[in-house]
Amino acid sequence: MAVGLSPPEPLPPIAGLELASGASGKRKSNDLALIKLPDGSRVSAVFTQNACRAAPVEIALEHLRRSAPKALLINSGNANAGTGQAGHQDALVLCRSLAESLAIASEQVLPFSTGVIGERLDMGALIPAVQALPHNLSADGWLMAAQAMMTTDTLPKGASAEFGFQGRTCRINGIAKGAAMMEPNMATVLCFMATDAAISQSMLDQLLKQAVSKSFNRITVEGDTSTNDACVLISTGSPASAELTRGDQESFCNALEEVALRLAQAIIRDAEGATRFITVSLEDGCSEADCLKVAYAIARSPLVKIVAFSGDPNWGRILMAAGNAGVKIAMDRMSIFLDDHCCFERGEIAENYSETQAASIMDQPEFTIRVSLGQGKASAQIWTSDLSDEYLRINSDYRT
Amino acid sequence: MAVGLSPPEPLPPIAGLELASGASGKRKSNDLALIKLPDGSRVSAVFTQNACRAAPVEIALEHLRRSAPKALLINSGNANAGTGQAGHQDALVLCRSLAESLAIASEQVLPFSTGVIGERLDMGALIPAVQALPHNLSADGWLMAAQAMMTTDTLPKGASAEFGFQGRTCRINGIAKGAAMMEPNMATVLCFMATDAAISQSMLDQLLKQAVSKSFNRITVEGDTSTNDACVLISTGSPASAELTRGDQESFCNALEEVALRLAQAIIRDAEGATRFITVSLEDGCSEADCLKVAYAIARSPLVKIVAFSGDPNWGRILMAAGNAGVKIAMDRMSIFLDDHCCFERGEIAENYSETQAASIMDQPEFTIRVSLGQGKASAQIWTSDLSDEYLRINSDYRT
Repeated sequence: MAVGLSPPEPLPPIAGLELASGASGKRKSNDLALIKLPDGSRVSAVFTQNACRAAPVEIALEHLRRSAPKALLINSGNANAGTGQAGHQDALVLCRSLAESLAIASEQVLPFSTGVIGERLDMGALIPAVQALPHNLSADGWLMAAQAMMTTDTLPKGASAEFGFQGRTCRINGIAKGAAMMEPNMATVLCFMATDAAISQSMLDQLLKQAVSKSFNRITVEGDTSTNDACVLISTGSPASAELTRGDQESFCNALEEVALRLAQAIIRDAEGATRFITVSLEDGCSEADCLKVAYAIARSPLVKIVAFSGDPNWGRILMAAGNAGVKIAMDRMSIFLDDHCCFERGEIAENYSETQAASIMDQPEFTIRVSLGQGKASAQIWTSDLSDEYLRINSDYRT
Repeated sequence: MAVGLSPPEPLPPIAGLELASGASGKRKSNDLALIKLPDGSRVSAVFTQNACRAAPVEIALEHLRRSAPKALLINSGNANAGTGQAGHQDALVLCRSLAESLAIASEQVLPFSTGVIGERLDMGALIPAVQALPHNLSADGWLMAAQAMMTTDTLPKGASAEFGFQGRTCRINGIAKGAAMMEPNMATVLCFMATDAAISQSMLDQLLKQAVSKSFNRITVEGDTSTNDACVLISTGSPASAELTRGDQESFCNALEEVALRLAQAIIRDAEGATRFITVSLEDGCSEADCLKVAYAIARSPLVKIVAFSGDPNWGRILMAAGNAGVKIAMDRMSIFLDDHCCFERGEIAENYSETQAASIMDQPEFTIRVSLGQGKASAQIWTSDLSDEYLRINSDYRT
């Protein structure tokens, strides 16, 4: 029931980078993915700000500090979170199992997990499946890996873009998963992006943070942030080749932000039970931070999300939610629009407000909630989904 | 479908205070209530912190500043919020209509509204109904007034308690309404309490705030705060009679807090679509503020509320939600209990954790989510409901 989302086109290879997927037998479909990086790759990553981080997040952070990563190992269906020292050991054993098969050091493996929280991994099933992964490596494995990361996603998410750099055509690919427990906070769901351009570590770190702040940090499903979020950006470009400079970073930034935004929006289009893809657009605020606060207050409000599902143009709930953002609002300067139809204009019910027209706008699979605060020149856009009976059903039965 | 809630017992009179209810004809049941105060009454009130406050809230604040209130006028079904200058005028006209019938000044009327946001009041229907209200005044009208304030409430809410004061038996009564859009923020849904004890204005203000912070500010349905919340405490005790002093305020405080807490909990028991009454109890935190933040993060989480509805003991979601509170958590000191059954103990899955036992606890209509942070000596309790398909249905169809 994804909204306006098709299966992605196959992603072209990024030279030297290979991917594999596999099955532990715990689920009907593949639940393991491997991304093997060419020598000389640089890796930047941002992780969930949830205080109860999963074991693999702690280990990935530690391994990143100690070594240059050569492989990323992802399992889906079990988050290995809330599993204590035992879960920590399990994740280390999986890193070691893969490292042995690839003849690399354990700490060159970054582990990632997504799925149910509070259950131990089935190590008996996982170890042999992890050891077998390297046999399936392929430069064309992007979407197979995206498929293997899925939990309640109905479609794999992939995006690719080209950019010019010193007369050469470079590329950036990305895959992502995520459908709920999803309000990334300085990080995201699981997302892996790679480019063949050579980029310094400091620039990679900076540009990833910047791209995430404009994409994965602008989406919300229900306001919950996972214990396992991670977003990784890989530069495979050999340090020997020309490095991206401040002067020519714009084309790369555009491509990176395009890929990140397409993946972030794909996650919302495929959010659990989503029947609407909703843009929340804040305008004329005093600051971007104010605009984001109001936009999130609207996008998170269960009462707004429920009328978005039912198609009831009850814009009064948008007003209520905006008022709860903790931002100073002058109601007599504030206006509320559904697409371009004005419902509330500078503090009054809009003179030409038509409930019929508002209802027909909210009955579309995609529409925009636009709020003008009438206070300044700042603006911000975020994206969210509705709250449907299907969302409830999925989350009642998730583990069964 | 209220959880463990019966219709309240009739409330005994508070000498001199009379109540009435009436119907504008806009709804099947009564939608107007009047509380008439005896001369010399003192009134304290706290209001919603929503930045988009409804017209009646603004007017009530202004009237409180200018005059000693003699009458409280409440209409349900329409919040008169987001209605601009026109809505402001409407509320003033209703105050004037009532004032004329009671031969008092307009500014001695405090108006309160609850219901749909963003629609104008039907003044043609309301004015004559408001003017007729004084004919029905009765000292026994408490529950009739509570009934007339209801929107999606299935039962009226009322509570009464006695307390001793200088050898005399005094009383405090309270009525409340509220079922959703409900996370009071320094205020509440609509609640009106009155005591026959004489209490100074400053003590009344202080004790109301204190009682609200322990009752209405400890409950949440879905995290949305209404544009119209108000909680009012009336002291009818004539200034001529002995005033409550610091020395003997304890018995009054206990009675006030008992009434406020019973009303607040009744609201959660009757929350829209509620099938569970859930206590979220935080222990061993560094501060009460930390405990409240974690408790609210758990109680607000849609993913926690949905498993509470389905009865799935997916305590991993409690861990996830706690981690999103913005509070520093040491997972290896943290424990999670369902009633007294330990699920997660100092960072590990509890040795004696039984999914069957956890499921049977969550299958009860009432249970406690207890989290020990293992960091200090502070604690806090709040109350919430689950998120059911009925909640979705009610809020999809609310206006129809």
